[in-house]
Amino acid sequence: MAALGEFGLIAALSGWLPPDPRTLVGIGDDAAVLAAPDGRVVASTDFLLEGRHFRRDWSSAPDVGRKAAARSLIDVAAMGAVPTGLLVALAAPADLPVSWARGLTEGLAAECARAGASVVGGDTARASSVLLATTGLGDLEGRDPVLRSGAFPGDLVAVAGPLGHAAAGLALLSAGIAVSLGGTTPPDPPAWANPLVAAHQRPAPPYDAGPEAADLGATAMIDISDGLLADLGHIAAASGVLIDLSSARLAPGDNLLAAARSVKLDRTDRGSRTDHSDALAWVLTGGEDHALAAAFPPGVALPTRWTVIGEVRAGPGDGYSISVDGQPWTGSAGWDHFRG
Amino acid sequence: MAALGEFGLIAALSGWLPPDPRTLVGIGDDAAVLAAPDGRVVASTDFLLEGRHFRRDWSSAPDVGRKAAARSLIDVAAMGAVPTGLLVALAAPADLPVSWARGLTEGLAAECARAGASVVGGDTARASSVLLATTGLGDLEGRDPVLRSGAFPGDLVAVAGPLGHAAAGLALLSAGIAVSLGGTTPPDPPAWANPLVAAHQRPAPPYDAGPEAADLGATAMIDISDGLLADLGHIAAASGVLIDLSSARLAPGDNLLAAARSVKLDRTDRGSRTDHSDALAWVLTGGEDHALAAAFPPGVALPTRWTVIGEVRAGPGDGYSISVDGQPWTGSAGWDHFRG
Repeated sequence: MAALGEFGLIAALSGWLPPDPRTLVGIGDDAAVLAAPDGRVVASTDFLLEGRHFRRDWSSAPDVGRKAAARSLIDVAAMGAVPTGLLVALAAPADLPVSWARGLTEGLAAECARAGASVVGGDTARASSVLLATTGLGDLEGRDPVLRSGAFPGDLVAVAGPLGHAAAGLALLSAGIAVSLGGTTPPDPPAWANPLVAAHQRPAPPYDAGPEAADLGATAMIDISDGLLADLGHIAAASGVLIDLSSARLAPGDNLLAAARSVKLDRTDRGSRTDHSDALAWVLTGGEDHALAAAFPPGVALPTRWTVIGEVRAGPGDGYSISVDGQPWTGSAGWDHFRG
Repeated sequence: MAALGEFGLIAALSGWLPPDPRTLVGIGDDAAVLAAPDGRVVASTDFLLEGRHFRRDWSSAPDVGRKAAARSLIDVAAMGAVPTGLLVALAAPADLPVSWARGLTEGLAAECARAGASVVGGDTARASSVLLATTGLGDLEGRDPVLRSGAFPGDLVAVAGPLGHAAAGLALLSAGIAVSLGGTTPPDPPAWANPLVAAHQRPAPPYDAGPEAADLGATAMIDISDGLLADLGHIAAASGVLIDLSSARLAPGDNLLAAARSVKLDRTDRGSRTDHSDALAWVLTGGEDHALAAAFPPGVALPTRWTVIGEVRAGPGDGYSISVDGQPWTGSAGWDHFRG
């Protein structure tokens, strides 16, 4: 990296990325110019910091690039917009291998391609660890933006995309159960672990479900990045409603149960908990899958990738805005209620 | 900061910022929605990293906010666009005082106001030092974007804004000559130093000079962030031309000469250099003033804030793209040529 230098890196990044006719001015000028045919632009910015959001020995450079792009582009989709562009600020140590930067760029480009967007600009700097700040841009194509504040009593609450898979994958990596890139390879990594670890390393947000939900009349929508309960809590608070979830609709799948059994989350302080309750915790609080959650008016025919998990009720309740099977959820204090 | 938490910080930031009717969806949803009446959006992203781009003991929180905003917004103006919005990603240590975050927000808002823009969104994270990543957005209002690649032989080269002031101010701070916030206050800080130190702490880029230049027919434009010679080198390279500067037009002012005398840049390895040559070095290589440099067709009547400093010639030369008074400038190897 030090040998390449800032200008060399920018030139290289630019050369490694595919051209996009919608990018009117791309990398290499003072700023990018991007088509915004709707007359409005949707924009969201996110950090992805080494040590905090990823480890270079647990995620490859392309995986880090995919994740960095995914975080911002799914935010754009969660407004009901089509992602169009991505700006990438990259700070890195001088001894970062150029091959790592190239892999990162490939991951950024690949995830942009999944979302229908392109890398349009960026910045580079020197730092003691890898710092990424991505900004996603998008076009509403005439749609009203879907806010967090529009959920209405009687609406259905549904999700598109997996819940808890990335959190389980991270737990497997942390426990040394699954293969890591730089660390020791466990003797016999279980096959069911692979998709979970992949969900952590390469989340695959359902970008087109965002505009789809908007077109179906979604009244509120959010990207699940902080965990299902926390993010539905944002919708409930912004909308002034209560959201009641059905635990039966959130039952963890076999791979999550197997992961919980392996990781033994309950080894120390949670000795009395079951595998089911630990797996359910990933479903309710794992955020890194970047699924979408939305409220829809009752009676809407939802495509199969949307799973109804609850409904909107008048509220909020007395000190809570999320309930499960009609029982208040009041944050960590009330957490054990759902752990069987 | 730790007490406030991420959501508390976002809510607080939002409450500290003035509302803007052009911001259709602001802080607090998955993404911002901003008017882009031109049908195109201009976007640029930049890091401002503690220890690398600023020191908390040399710059106040509002100053850091102003500088962070300035870096991205002037990039937008350098395309000929009007800045409209700013996204701010802030990572900080848990023990960062909330008052510092508030001061930062005030600085961001103040600089956005100078540029005619608003803070529309952001992200927060934990880090061991203060990391800022800003994304400026802007609207071309029907103008063609002014690229780096359009300069043509015969064009005049002009700058709007100061050159070398911020670099001189930083040198004064580094030498302990000017007042610093957290360090020792020198016994008798010289009055001429104050505007130079202020230029480092609070650069005041001439945002409206960007669209003005575009309207005057500028053929190429750039924000001077890497230094005059380096940035004009980018224009020359992108345009396939040679740029010849007039040293008489770049003569350092009295305050730069006084600063050079005080700092005695030449104390050790540069013993033979004059104050004039050291001050000229700030003019030619200091980038943090964020002045604008542009090429204009010959005969254009320029407003007084634009100072003609050279002209575009056919080129490039043999191994160089910038000359001064007709003599090749070939980078650091040829640097002493201009140091008297």
